[in-house]
Amino acid sequence: MDSKSGRRPGSPQTREAILEAAVEAFTEGGYAGTTIRAVARTAGVDPALVMHFFGNKDGLFDAAIRASGLPLRELGEVMEGDIEGVGERLVRRYLSLWESPEHGPKLRAVVSSAASSPAAAAMLKEFITNEVLQPLAGQLGVDQAETRGIIAGSHLIGIAFTRYVLNIGPVASLEKEQLVACVAPAVQRYLTGDLPLA
Amino acid sequence: MDSKSGRRPGSPQTREAILEAAVEAFTEGGYAGTTIRAVARTAGVDPALVMHFFGNKDGLFDAAIRASGLPLRELGEVMEGDIEGVGERLVRRYLSLWESPEHGPKLRAVVSSAASSPAAAAMLKEFITNEVLQPLAGQLGVDQAETRGIIAGSHLIGIAFTRYVLNIGPVASLEKEQLVACVAPAVQRYLTGDLPLA
Repeated sequence: MDSKSGRRPGSPQTREAILEAAVEAFTEGGYAGTTIRAVARTAGVDPALVMHFFGNKDGLFDAAIRASGLPLRELGEVMEGDIEGVGERLVRRYLSLWESPEHGPKLRAVVSSAASSPAAAAMLKEFITNEVLQPLAGQLGVDQAETRGIIAGSHLIGIAFTRYVLNIGPVASLEKEQLVACVAPAVQRYLTGDLPLA
Repeated sequence: MDSKSGRRPGSPQTREAILEAAVEAFTEGGYAGTTIRAVARTAGVDPALVMHFFGNKDGLFDAAIRASGLPLRELGEVMEGDIEGVGERLVRRYLSLWESPEHGPKLRAVVSSAASSPAAAAMLKEFITNEVLQPLAGQLGVDQAETRGIIAGSHLIGIAFTRYVLNIGPVASLEKEQLVACVAPAVQRYLTGDLPLA
């Protein structure tokens, strides 16, 4: 225990401080660039205490995603309103999230981590499925809602990857509303249109 | 120089052997997990010779993508045939590439590397733009062909990321032809349909 920090091992404040350090570390360095040791140092605790709370790096990453304050569950709010506009509302809300100074860097870290680490990918997969897709699918009231949700989600992840991670010219430089207008009809079709699903 | 290998420094065969080792290393470990030292060891040469040929790790990655034999340029062949079917042909060809035992792991390594390394992302961006999008756009004969190509490409990257990297249930378990039927209309619209582009 780092005596300078004055934190008691095992207290909720200590767990909180570790999580805060973890969110910061994963956001800056991604999954591969983050170590338990560095997180412990930032939080002013012994690495063993990080292990005590979170088991291992995967457990810490999982907890950090949940603690990161990413308002992904709020994406479900786009279900409010007419169903013909759900695609447009979802694309707009999603791009706004990526473009927010608070959440954009965290989203980027999550996607980058998932691409380079199978453990991080498994976490992201579980998180997207349980926290985003299943609630959304439940509200859609259409057949094959989960499959529809994830095809739409695939499209949105690809847009973010090219626009915000790879930063490829034409997609990166489009105005947000122009991109919304391009992409919304495809997302709308995936969510509520005629699809050749069994 | 490793005397065991019997390779002459500076010979084309030596460069070839380094590249082969690099493609293998990047495919297995991604950008972050690959070192010049390990590539040199596999190729049986001194690390300084790797630097001599390729400058640094970024240069080696760039050369490895080009040497990997990924038949991305062949995606342009989908332009042959009626223009109403180009979306379907492109999606089918692209998914087949990801599902081939030879090319799938390499594609996965490229996408993972780009997600975790800005240098690798810059390479992938330049490669996609110059080698895939511009030739494709030139053949489409539509306005804003490059922007169309990259929006379609974004969608395809997202599908591959969810299906082959994250391996998320509903998208990962769809039959390839079912996924082609779902996604082709959206890609077709991006390539040749009415889009609100300036």
